[in-house]
Amino acid sequence: PTPENASPRSGQQLDSPSIAERDTLSKRESGVTARSPMRLRMEAFIKENQQEIVRALEALDGSQRFQVDKWDRPNGGGGISCVLQDGKVFEKAGVNTSVVYGTLPRAAISKMRVNHKALDPDVENLEFFAAGLSLVLHPQNPMAPTVHLNYRYFETANQDGTTNAWWFGGGTDLTPSYLFDEDVIHFHRGIKEACDAHDKDYYSRFKKWCDEYFSVKHRGETRGVGGIFFDDLDETEKDQESLFAFVQTCLGAFLPSYLPIIQKRRDMPFTEKEKQWQQLRRGRYVEFNLVHDRGTAFGLNTPGARIESILMSLPLTARWQYQHEPEKGSREERLVNVLKKPVDWV
Amino acid sequence: PTPENASPRSGQQLDSPSIAERDTLSKRESGVTARSPMRLRMEAFIKENQQEIVRALEALDGSQRFQVDKWDRPNGGGGISCVLQDGKVFEKAGVNTSVVYGTLPRAAISKMRVNHKALDPDVENLEFFAAGLSLVLHPQNPMAPTVHLNYRYFETANQDGTTNAWWFGGGTDLTPSYLFDEDVIHFHRGIKEACDAHDKDYYSRFKKWCDEYFSVKHRGETRGVGGIFFDDLDETEKDQESLFAFVQTCLGAFLPSYLPIIQKRRDMPFTEKEKQWQQLRRGRYVEFNLVHDRGTAFGLNTPGARIESILMSLPLTARWQYQHEPEKGSREERLVNVLKKPVDWV
Repeated sequence: PTPENASPRSGQQLDSPSIAERDTLSKRESGVTARSPMRLRMEAFIKENQQEIVRALEALDGSQRFQVDKWDRPNGGGGISCVLQDGKVFEKAGVNTSVVYGTLPRAAISKMRVNHKALDPDVENLEFFAAGLSLVLHPQNPMAPTVHLNYRYFETANQDGTTNAWWFGGGTDLTPSYLFDEDVIHFHRGIKEACDAHDKDYYSRFKKWCDEYFSVKHRGETRGVGGIFFDDLDETEKDQESLFAFVQTCLGAFLPSYLPIIQKRRDMPFTEKEKQWQQLRRGRYVEFNLVHDRGTAFGLNTPGARIESILMSLPLTARWQYQHEPEKGSREERLVNVLKKPVDWV
Repeated sequence: PTPENASPRSGQQLDSPSIAERDTLSKRESGVTARSPMRLRMEAFIKENQQEIVRALEALDGSQRFQVDKWDRPNGGGGISCVLQDGKVFEKAGVNTSVVYGTLPRAAISKMRVNHKALDPDVENLEFFAAGLSLVLHPQNPMAPTVHLNYRYFETANQDGTTNAWWFGGGTDLTPSYLFDEDVIHFHRGIKEACDAHDKDYYSRFKKWCDEYFSVKHRGETRGVGGIFFDDLDETEKDQESLFAFVQTCLGAFLPSYLPIIQKRRDMPFTEKEKQWQQLRRGRYVEFNLVHDRGTAFGLNTPGARIESILMSLPLTARWQYQHEPEKGSREERLVNVLKKPVDWV
């Protein structure tokens, strides 16, 4: 049985409530407080931030509002997709939250055990919870960079419904079509500050991880100029409170790290040729997301997943031109050189 | 070791020549005749057809010539990529041939053994040969359909350099943005005639296989309105001569099956809205090719592969629009309905 088709109860004893049922009850009885399970605190946190980010981006774009779609999943959970399309500043901007209660089949459990030894290898399937905020902004102006952000929390349940394994993942990264060093430095500086407030090693570890993860392997290029990426941060890294605090700081650092850049670039003049170069870079973005991104692949392979929310990360328009080569010494060539050999920006 | 990095000799006895060496010698000594190994006959056949197709498409487009790139592979073989871009009739047209001599690692052999029991499961790697012609035409006019075709021959060598397993694969399929039933019927009729000349069961078997293979699973749609697809046709199907004759008939049927359609649609009037719908359908084409197509995945994962030739199948331009729904009763909706439930056209 697939995760979605399996009964939400199949991973547990019949006399214990599912975590979805526990969470519904807990929210009704006492709301969400600092003493609630991390699942509910993370859900509340990402939803607040989604609203704040959507408001800020609407104010910035000025031309139109986000379309807001709320959807429920049959086995518990659901999501809110906020998408602004063909705006004045943004060609496409998606800010999604999703909360999933489901069951993992044995094959998925075996894969996850590589990083989480607490997972029981002998069960047929396992109840899980996942909550995350994902954001991708594709600006109209080719001088303004695309940005991506995702923070997520994952948990599995024991047979009796108590927490088994849990971890945080996420990051943020910048994808310019034209390189303005000052923008990239500003972006990295903001993230580094957020990291440094929690652990002096985080920025360099997660910056490297980002360059490795966002690699368009078949092109020998990174997707963009990086940022941070991390996954599987669990009790072997730090306690749950500390990691939640870290994720909170990171997400809080997003608007100050990106808004000054888009404000500076949104109205810059550009040529038709520069617009075409942006479209070609958008094609590479599509290549990464459809060929290499694990999150996208996981989503597309999940029966019953909301495809439109997963693929909101794709740009409104993209281009593939056979054998396109940037001119020697051009700004386009400089970008590609940086993508072939990641730079330490701060 | 990966197929490309391994020595071309590692799968054989040191005193026997590689199949690449045998083929070079054979071509030099006696040219390619009906008594040559199938490898050389298939190579000659696809190259002749590539030239003929390129000439016909150039004559049709009228506005420009194909860019022709010849490339060699370090371990033997090579390819010819012919691409016409931003023409009067074609937004992008690619007609490629490739000939590959390489070695398969054990993991790849195990996968192939499912269909070819002649493959020795106990060797560490195996010399192989692959030759194929691939073609994708994306017209400018949204009333004119995209078409794809691929015919290929695969062979593995015994330790002494003689032929071990061999098989043919291929097919052709049509992807319209707007449905003209008469076009689809003409296309399918041409293929059916080609199939019927060899085996009365082929068309219905390979039509079904095509609908199954070109499925954009995450959308619940087929990529287009089908055609034929087959793979692994070996001696358990028919003898080598018969199968080669079948592939020859199929490839020969291509121009008559497609040219009348493009001639009829190339200059039809269309609106900006219809052009946008074409762009959205191009987005779906990209989704299939990058997420589901086994040939593309194999190519992108092959170290040293020529990425530009593999990705010539992608359209020049594509579009992803959040939550786009065709209007009730529209032509766009009718297309989507057909893609959700394949039709028997002839």
